[in-house]
Amino acid sequence: MLDDKILHFFKKRGSSYVSGEELSEAFGVSRTAVWKHIEKLRDEGYEIAASPHLGYKLMSVPDRLTSVELGWQLNTEVIGKRIYSYKEIGSTNDVAYSLATQGEKEGSIVIAEYQTKGRGRLGRKWISPRAKGVYFSVILRPDILPKDISVITLISSLSVAKTIRDLTNLAAFIKWPNDVLINKQKVCGILTELNGETDKINFVIVGIGINVNAKKELLPKEATSLSVEKERLISRLEFVKMLLRNLDVYYKIFNKGKIDQILKEYKRLSAILDRRVRVNYHNSSVSGHAIDVDKEGALILRLDSGFHERVLAGDVVLLR
Amino acid sequence: MLDDKILHFFKKRGSSYVSGEELSEAFGVSRTAVWKHIEKLRDEGYEIAASPHLGYKLMSVPDRLTSVELGWQLNTEVIGKRIYSYKEIGSTNDVAYSLATQGEKEGSIVIAEYQTKGRGRLGRKWISPRAKGVYFSVILRPDILPKDISVITLISSLSVAKTIRDLTNLAAFIKWPNDVLINKQKVCGILTELNGETDKINFVIVGIGINVNAKKELLPKEATSLSVEKERLISRLEFVKMLLRNLDVYYKIFNKGKIDQILKEYKRLSAILDRRVRVNYHNSSVSGHAIDVDKEGALILRLDSGFHERVLAGDVVLLR
Repeated sequence: MLDDKILHFFKKRGSSYVSGEELSEAFGVSRTAVWKHIEKLRDEGYEIAASPHLGYKLMSVPDRLTSVELGWQLNTEVIGKRIYSYKEIGSTNDVAYSLATQGEKEGSIVIAEYQTKGRGRLGRKWISPRAKGVYFSVILRPDILPKDISVITLISSLSVAKTIRDLTNLAAFIKWPNDVLINKQKVCGILTELNGETDKINFVIVGIGINVNAKKELLPKEATSLSVEKERLISRLEFVKMLLRNLDVYYKIFNKGKIDQILKEYKRLSAILDRRVRVNYHNSSVSGHAIDVDKEGALILRLDSGFHERVLAGDVVLLR
Repeated sequence: MLDDKILHFFKKRGSSYVSGEELSEAFGVSRTAVWKHIEKLRDEGYEIAASPHLGYKLMSVPDRLTSVELGWQLNTEVIGKRIYSYKEIGSTNDVAYSLATQGEKEGSIVIAEYQTKGRGRLGRKWISPRAKGVYFSVILRPDILPKDISVITLISSLSVAKTIRDLTNLAAFIKWPNDVLINKQKVCGILTELNGETDKINFVIVGIGINVNAKKELLPKEATSLSVEKERLISRLEFVKMLLRNLDVYYKIFNKGKIDQILKEYKRLSAILDRRVRVNYHNSSVSGHAIDVDKEGALILRLDSGFHERVLAGDVVLLR
């Protein structure tokens, strides 16, 4: 699209002016056409200064999650090499799943300002206030067996917690397996879906939803957002770019087989290790002291009887 | 379809004659129309006697895998409650997968006389000689985690081996994880695909391909068929019905949590336990003495060093 091309042109030129003539020559369109596109970009929130003698200059970009803005100087190796951005979508996981079925490469992401059918784990709903959060899905094709899928979940939540800490300094912790909490309230949910055979994963879709700038009243009761906790708005654009870079780094570590390193960082940010917890799964539950997370992503509980139990799935409730 | 309805009418009447008048009244069509449908059924291989005074009588049915014939007195609880039959199809797994995505109930099967794109494990081809074999896929929705998917594979191969033994008396054995062999040659391949989340399987598609009546020259070199081994043709219809009943039984046992019972029968029919084997996976391999299969479907090898190794995936080669 010409809008995107003009933006790229501006960005490459940094902070200097670009004349209408230059743009019209570069893209083979009239100067009036250039002006119309500038107006359209302004409508979308781009601040573009115009001077009769110097031409146009990009002053600021809106906090919008477009493929042009996200891809600009992203510099990752795998994650986000291709970005599909939408203003509105049913569910980013559904679109990513369908792309993956058609052979889309690993690392591609699908991101949207709004989801009409955002999904969480186990068929739950995920609420996606428009342009207030970050909702995206990554396609991965790890060379693992279905039983190792949990590790992908650990990588994702670790990347989110780390990004929150790096960007906002907020004390984000991970509630096993993959919720991210600030002050014991949920800021992030992750839904990991897979397609595979008994002895091979074809692809994994990691859907990540983060409450960034939503006000408390837009969110479910037990949830919070980065802006509520930080008491200022957070750049979603900056957040996503940093998150994609962190995902890229941890996925690389994972592919080198260094799961120990990931586990070490994950455990350091755990909200539940060394705490007494109850894990609910279906209609049963088990309580104990959370003592470890193993290489397959299982939570190890020490029961009151002294026995250890490996828990592979469920919802954790912190006790006391 | 009227053909199917007429067949049902015949079947319910057992071995007695049905007059053209009765049929024409039962279905509200002319006697000429009835006659045309009878002719069509004859074209499809049904042997139907006609007597001017007594009417029509079904003498024999062709060995064709239609939903009417398969569903007739099948009497299963889950498997095959709904049957989608095709003369030709791309891949039964693909069609079943797509049905499952649209919410198809568990137990439904997709069966075809011929596959143009039959698939085996790990993207390999599965050759489906027309009307000579049995090619079908079952949709299951077991309440398990992705890591437990291997057990479904054990159930499937056990059901196939047992059906072959019951129907033909041939000594069928299972080569872990899920090939079925007769005289060390492959008669059956199983491709188990899954769709799920980290902590839940949405559905599993079990694709089963069996060489029933194909001549040696139609099959890959290392394969054989039931008819080659038995030196007579085998009723495919009878075979599939018996197989669906066995799957129904073992799946019920599995759902009751009695995996020990399944493992016991599986191990009794194993072609590799107590043998020296090599397991190839990707570019690596491991050799040892096959000593057990555990509850998660893993093969336990005793290495020369004396250590035990759990093998979760790979292709087994029998040594010596």
